[in-house]
Amino acid sequence: MAKVFGHIAGHPVGSCFANRADLRAAGLHSQRIAGISGNPREGADSVVVSGGYSTDEDFGDVILYTGHGGNRDGRQVGDQSITAPGNAGLLRSELEGHLVRVIRGAGGDSPYSPAVGLRYDGLFRVESHRSVWVNGFLTFQFRLVAVDTGRVPSDVREQDGEEYVTPFHGDEAHSPVPRQPSQAQRAVRKSAVTQRVKDWHEGQCQMCLQFLAVPGGFTYSEGAHILAIGRPYDGPDVVENVLCLCPNCHVLFDHGGRYLTDELGVVDGLTHEQIGELRTVRAHRIDLRYVRAHRRRWVAEG
Amino acid sequence: MAKVFGHIAGHPVGSCFANRADLRAAGLHSQRIAGISGNPREGADSVVVSGGYSTDEDFGDVILYTGHGGNRDGRQVGDQSITAPGNAGLLRSELEGHLVRVIRGAGGDSPYSPAVGLRYDGLFRVESHRSVWVNGFLTFQFRLVAVDTGRVPSDVREQDGEEYVTPFHGDEAHSPVPRQPSQAQRAVRKSAVTQRVKDWHEGQCQMCLQFLAVPGGFTYSEGAHILAIGRPYDGPDVVENVLCLCPNCHVLFDHGGRYLTDELGVVDGLTHEQIGELRTVRAHRIDLRYVRAHRRRWVAEG
Repeated sequence: MAKVFGHIAGHPVGSCFANRADLRAAGLHSQRIAGISGNPREGADSVVVSGGYSTDEDFGDVILYTGHGGNRDGRQVGDQSITAPGNAGLLRSELEGHLVRVIRGAGGDSPYSPAVGLRYDGLFRVESHRSVWVNGFLTFQFRLVAVDTGRVPSDVREQDGEEYVTPFHGDEAHSPVPRQPSQAQRAVRKSAVTQRVKDWHEGQCQMCLQFLAVPGGFTYSEGAHILAIGRPYDGPDVVENVLCLCPNCHVLFDHGGRYLTDELGVVDGLTHEQIGELRTVRAHRIDLRYVRAHRRRWVAEG
Repeated sequence: MAKVFGHIAGHPVGSCFANRADLRAAGLHSQRIAGISGNPREGADSVVVSGGYSTDEDFGDVILYTGHGGNRDGRQVGDQSITAPGNAGLLRSELEGHLVRVIRGAGGDSPYSPAVGLRYDGLFRVESHRSVWVNGFLTFQFRLVAVDTGRVPSDVREQDGEEYVTPFHGDEAHSPVPRQPSQAQRAVRKSAVTQRVKDWHEGQCQMCLQFLAVPGGFTYSEGAHILAIGRPYDGPDVVENVLCLCPNCHVLFDHGGRYLTDELGVVDGLTHEQIGELRTVRAHRIDLRYVRAHRRRWVAEG
């Protein structure tokens, strides 16, 4: 059964369940016992936070979630592996930006847990992970950050005469920070379409041919729309309008540092000299209309 | 006078002003006449949208904003230049992710304009730009996307039986899209501290030594925290904890594909072999405590 990322229709944030069987029947978490629903190929789509691991920490909008393995009756008695299915699934979701449903269960001593049963608490992203040594055994701790828990995003208030904002999204979600612009420089759109293109190219950049390999057996790449989505460009989210690029080539391509010829030559936007050729695979057809419309953003032509 | 990015204390979104002089006195827009407050070094911090350029288009949460130059009495009579101060300022803000205050003025035919005077309408990011030919003259059109206009972020509603969401942030802000995870894969934190480090290195990656040059005379780089901000790492936002990296090295560094030795050697996280040395400048001191704490995320040591 293919993973379904995001909210599940009919079960809004705050929905409660008596037990794991009901949760599973609702489609929120496919596993009967395991805390992580995930695999290395698709990623993880949901986790249950139930206090089973003593190293879990729950700050509400930020959860430090312990990977699976090596645990017996709440005690760490062996190493965890980053290639174990659930852990590799969370790592894949970290790299791909998949959102993970968080279900909190009763038990443990977290103030955020429900009193009884299980509660769907919304979508989190896997921001990062680290190795943690517990009783001398290797474990992994994933940092989950709230993205959509159905609440109003900002809580602006006066504090010591200065204006503070508690961002709901983002990295400082658990602590008030002085109000100042703190913004992603780059936002990369994700979709089933971009994922398909990345899969075809196995993460290899179509321009510079680099693989960005990280531990755990994954390659990082980005799905780049040739003609940007949204006004004024109105490029479509179809595979014929998407390239698999490394972040560097993606930045250059989006800001006029690279464009393509009709023969799919890669051109340096500063010198207007061709510096290479776009790598293609048979399955991945590219529509020249989008290539030309992108080029017209940067190059004066008829 | 140094540019102030973000909201101005005492003047919340929706504040109204009778004229440009009052707007200037409030600190919202430093220019008496020009529509763009900006320069190539610092970026643009505010724009006034007043319908002076016929090619401006206002969709509410998305504004297509025409650069300055070559315009007489609302008619394009000459080319614009991307190196003109305001245009270069907007380009800098696009590359750096600076948020721009948008002030709408009466005039023009936009339904989003105030009936009289000027109104502060919140913070937008400069998502992209393109060349547009108007009467045979080159102009630039910047795409501004609402980030913080003081409204509730999402408007979930039923439409044709499917659940749709109108994201307030992000790229599809002006049109409803099917509800599905659409998430930045990478979020890069911005601060005065990261900007200072990037300035010291003039945008050169400290690991691979690349410059990512884009048209307009700018180099793209990212400020990377060595020890990540926020729980559980709690790395500080200080120059001693920040590197200037290209996006590729930043991805690798954040996911264990690169780490540093105490001598600031650059190590491949898969092979654990040293592949280079971190480039440093005299002014930029790096604190080894953060280097070690980052390394401990990936490497088993005592």
